[in-house]
Amino acid sequence: MQSSSITQQSEQSYSFHLPTRIEFGFGKASILGGHLAAMGVKQAFIVSDQGVVSAGLLSNINASLQEAGISSELYLEVEPDPSFKTIDRGADCFRKSHCDVLIAVGGGSVMDTAKGIRIVAQHGQSIGDYAGVERIKSGSVIPLVAVPTTSGTGSEVTIFGVYSDWENQVKVTVNSRYMAPTLAIVDPELTLGLPKKITASTGIDALAHGIETYFSRRASPATDALATEAIATIGSSLRAAVENGHDKAARTRMSHGSLLAGMAFNNGLLGLAHAIGSALSGHCHVPHGIAIGLLLPHVIEFNAGENVQKAANIANLLGIHNGSSSSLAAQAAEAVAQLVSDIGLPTRLRDVDVSEHQLGVIALDSFKSGMMKWNPKQPSEAEVLELLKKIY
Amino acid sequence: MQSSSITQQSEQSYSFHLPTRIEFGFGKASILGGHLAAMGVKQAFIVSDQGVVSAGLLSNINASLQEAGISSELYLEVEPDPSFKTIDRGADCFRKSHCDVLIAVGGGSVMDTAKGIRIVAQHGQSIGDYAGVERIKSGSVIPLVAVPTTSGTGSEVTIFGVYSDWENQVKVTVNSRYMAPTLAIVDPELTLGLPKKITASTGIDALAHGIETYFSRRASPATDALATEAIATIGSSLRAAVENGHDKAARTRMSHGSLLAGMAFNNGLLGLAHAIGSALSGHCHVPHGIAIGLLLPHVIEFNAGENVQKAANIANLLGIHNGSSSSLAAQAAEAVAQLVSDIGLPTRLRDVDVSEHQLGVIALDSFKSGMMKWNPKQPSEAEVLELLKKIY
Repeated sequence: MQSSSITQQSEQSYSFHLPTRIEFGFGKASILGGHLAAMGVKQAFIVSDQGVVSAGLLSNINASLQEAGISSELYLEVEPDPSFKTIDRGADCFRKSHCDVLIAVGGGSVMDTAKGIRIVAQHGQSIGDYAGVERIKSGSVIPLVAVPTTSGTGSEVTIFGVYSDWENQVKVTVNSRYMAPTLAIVDPELTLGLPKKITASTGIDALAHGIETYFSRRASPATDALATEAIATIGSSLRAAVENGHDKAARTRMSHGSLLAGMAFNNGLLGLAHAIGSALSGHCHVPHGIAIGLLLPHVIEFNAGENVQKAANIANLLGIHNGSSSSLAAQAAEAVAQLVSDIGLPTRLRDVDVSEHQLGVIALDSFKSGMMKWNPKQPSEAEVLELLKKIY
Repeated sequence: MQSSSITQQSEQSYSFHLPTRIEFGFGKASILGGHLAAMGVKQAFIVSDQGVVSAGLLSNINASLQEAGISSELYLEVEPDPSFKTIDRGADCFRKSHCDVLIAVGGGSVMDTAKGIRIVAQHGQSIGDYAGVERIKSGSVIPLVAVPTTSGTGSEVTIFGVYSDWENQVKVTVNSRYMAPTLAIVDPELTLGLPKKITASTGIDALAHGIETYFSRRASPATDALATEAIATIGSSLRAAVENGHDKAARTRMSHGSLLAGMAFNNGLLGLAHAIGSALSGHCHVPHGIAIGLLLPHVIEFNAGENVQKAANIANLLGIHNGSSSSLAAQAAEAVAQLVSDIGLPTRLRDVDVSEHQLGVIALDSFKSGMMKWNPKQPSEAEVLELLKKIY
């Protein structure tokens, strides 16, 4: 399986970059102070949100900072899909604080907020001025430590940040090697209390990162290696993590899987599910993971038409081994659909307050996503609409 | 297979760091000038050796630099297993040159020389003063671009450099995150003219990097993903690369495999074959790759006693699928022994000018290697001696 995927790509060119240092392990967030002291840090600016505070996830981290003699300031003004203004205001607060490190403790929005604050605090302007690919000219002297509290986004190791431009009603992505956190502390312990619904929606997003990267036109042997391990790991632990959030082994495996998927898609990029998902969330405010769960099985089916071998390999990675390549490819889509349903996520667009008359504009806008071009098979607008109608 | 390896490690902690940006592809070395211009470079200090010059491998690189308006200075005083003095003298030349980038074009010794020059030019002292783990206190402002001309060492992405301390007749390793090159340009085209013997010895070293990292006590899901892909890739292309050096597909796959193995062992570290190999090269001047080829099959057999599942997985990765786990494990060792023989490398210690009376001191000294402790099963000195006698 591994060999065949490489053969197809043996003449390819690719780039791979993963500048973030990773520390993984149960309880690692509780020894964060030691890492910061080794970096010469005196005063930390912690970006987080009320949910993280209420869940008590900052207490061990704070104790560890105190023990290391590091003072801290807490910044909680983080909203989902953070706006330009939120970032720019945060950068202002950071500058006034005279802190010497940024620590993000939370999910994707918290980490993206801290990434943005770091760039604006260093280089000025507004985060919107850096939207696009490699528009930041140099690194920041401010170290950024990312501590994810969900298993899904992968933002702790990626070079991306997504921000809302409320004036123009669009989401923009800042894609720059200088966005990558300095250090990622991935501690499964922080995810033990995550509610079922968030475990399910973030977990299916992580699975989609693995699957979309594996299918991507930018896939390379290195991203294939990471993505396939991510798919197998998430596929065999997401149900258990949703069923019993305190299952340490399942939570640890979800943290592993989500991290591996982030390492992969940071380099291999994503595809159709994320392209349509972005439009779906933009127009109908469907939460990201739920949108991805709705789309993923159908995207696998669509992509199997272009690369049946990779679709069949996905079935293998999900524990399905019997059948021809085309039968395995079909079973891969079915297995993911079953998983989405088993973990309690919606399976029809009509169930998440999407009106049928919106499908046209969603199909149209999915082509505005930078991820569309990495999908192995380029759909027509009519094909995207057809796909959306099937899910409706 | 992937799942089982993770299950064993699900409660583990690990670190992962791969700071080097990687550009992979046929012909990528010929567009090096563009990358350097984007980095603002004006004058390049090229570290290489006479073999690389004679093979004509610098001509495309030089043309590309000229085209980008970058002048260059060539430094060829590189010996195999570079000494402290070589590094310190190179640093002196670099400082006097007023160049603003270091480019290493060559095999492991060339890359390690450039890594050492960069650190000494920035921080002063002698490279020997940085021997050990993380003894360099900060990064270098001098960017280092590594362009490997063999498929084996992985040095283009690792944080290690190995140097000879002639005064004390030992080899030392500098292990520091600040040793990693800034950019690795991995271009299979540069390996097309590599002689059979070097292709074989560097290739088996790359395979050993994959296998020893997979077995390592420091293995993690991320290193497993990379190492298993490396083993499958190298296992299925090394014979073809040795047989016909101009087989572009085989050369490309060897470059992929060696790079993936380097990415893996940079984090998962190595084991018994490299520990004994180091002593064997030190005492009897057996070239590194040849020493590794002699040892690897026996190390697989030894390690199977500790982790039969991983040994069996190695057989799978080498295309062998029939038999119980213990039968597969035995077949993995046999398959690697067959490969070593097929590519024309020696299979007995007596054939490489090792005297039987030296085996004792080699066994003893193998315990001086920092790699011994990462082997999954800790051998006694008697067991290492027994292993050496079997190969004699």
